[in-house]
Amino acid sequence: MSNDKHTGLFYNHGTFSRVEDVLAVEESLSIAINGEPFTVTMRTPGYEAELIRGLLYTEEVYRDTETTPFVEILETNAKGYVTSVNVKIPEDKILKDFAGSRNIISASSCGLCGRTSFEDTITKNTITETGVLEPSLIAQMFESMSKQQEAFQKSGGTHASAVFTLEGELLDIKEDIGRHNAVDKVIGALVNNNSLGKAKVLTVSGRISYEIVNKALSAGIPFLASVSAPSTLAIENADAAGMTIMAFCRTNKLTIYAHPERIVQQDTVQVNR
Amino acid sequence: MSNDKHTGLFYNHGTFSRVEDVLAVEESLSIAINGEPFTVTMRTPGYEAELIRGLLYTEEVYRDTETTPFVEILETNAKGYVTSVNVKIPEDKILKDFAGSRNIISASSCGLCGRTSFEDTITKNTITETGVLEPSLIAQMFESMSKQQEAFQKSGGTHASAVFTLEGELLDIKEDIGRHNAVDKVIGALVNNNSLGKAKVLTVSGRISYEIVNKALSAGIPFLASVSAPSTLAIENADAAGMTIMAFCRTNKLTIYAHPERIVQQDTVQVNR
Repeated sequence: MSNDKHTGLFYNHGTFSRVEDVLAVEESLSIAINGEPFTVTMRTPGYEAELIRGLLYTEEVYRDTETTPFVEILETNAKGYVTSVNVKIPEDKILKDFAGSRNIISASSCGLCGRTSFEDTITKNTITETGVLEPSLIAQMFESMSKQQEAFQKSGGTHASAVFTLEGELLDIKEDIGRHNAVDKVIGALVNNNSLGKAKVLTVSGRISYEIVNKALSAGIPFLASVSAPSTLAIENADAAGMTIMAFCRTNKLTIYAHPERIVQQDTVQVNR
Repeated sequence: MSNDKHTGLFYNHGTFSRVEDVLAVEESLSIAINGEPFTVTMRTPGYEAELIRGLLYTEEVYRDTETTPFVEILETNAKGYVTSVNVKIPEDKILKDFAGSRNIISASSCGLCGRTSFEDTITKNTITETGVLEPSLIAQMFESMSKQQEAFQKSGGTHASAVFTLEGELLDIKEDIGRHNAVDKVIGALVNNNSLGKAKVLTVSGRISYEIVNKALSAGIPFLASVSAPSTLAIENADAAGMTIMAFCRTNKLTIYAHPERIVQQDTVQVNR
């Protein structure tokens, strides 16, 4: 249940009326790994297995694609939402020591939480993809994503992330109140389906920040596109790692901020806009 | 410097042209307290003293309003941005033990990072304010905020937060790539000016999530308003703590989701919208 009804008092040009509005659900989820506290994230309930698989994958804690870890539900709250889980992973498959320093909470699987210094977060992942993308497909991708943003259409309160092939085929889309969570859910769904290799374009509804680039890099996705703005550090990160960044994507318009060589350019580059 | 220029390749209906775009700056800031690592946040540079004061205040680590802590700059990066600081606070004024469990990084001063369980984050703060607010003032407040969102006007990549009196007087406004940071900066600015008591309405450009309510509660601000959506948990949090929440604020329109008794209602409540 990604939405829930809430009573509100609607003010409209001086008059008031009672309304029932649909709002995005936000609930905490405590995640333990083999009984050790890992993190707590604020997220929209649903797709817990995908969120956890994606989070562990993009944070490079567990990246084995052969075995889907068992997610044991420890607690469900009075509203019926899962609030605490334990993930069972063979100890020898855990890539990072998270005990102690990772005994922390994040607002939205932000990817930085639990690191003891910023340097720890600088990704070593690079993109070596040589495939190219037809820019006119991007608007179609955002249209496909938008059509399936069911929670957003009702509540206006959730972010979305979707993955596509270079031909524009939609592989999956997920929504969450946290933009990092939406990315983790969609990546986790592909890891669980053993189809992450097909994912070439990641579209996001929110801003492209440093950590969103890091998550896409860890998933090996060469193209990242947003309807919104990128940050300076996101572009520097993508530049260094070989990722193509497209932002402010609109119908027939977008701006490429990193690695434009992967975008098909049929026309001559002109100097002025 | 909250914005920086970046070269982009602008695609417009099949043609490409080189552009120089202004983007929101995102840089890491490591914060130590008396030499002990406290947190690392991704933020837009500028107003570091305000960000830190607000963060420590809303996270209830240091709430003494008499003494502004000395912020010692430890590192500045090649681009000239401060990346590491040490905050000097008398040990007996530190309200929480943060060593070890708080040895962590947050993406955006999210307020949850560093807590070892979700229960730790449930605020004990309640609002006892009895003042009332004229709803027609809210649109004016968002207009005042919008006019001063200089970084956003140029980059489209920053959030804003502003504080007002019940009469609609703008006390301060701050911008940041992170919506939590913008709130911390504006609260920190008021704490530093010893004028937090005047702050009655907090306006935010981003969504109202659980943690934004927590930050406003810790600052004792009775009214929280957003142009965007609230989450279910934000409303439950505000309901329990006595805070008035207004969301989807537009010219002459808004919806009150918690504690509407503080909003002046001249007209009779009608049943249907």
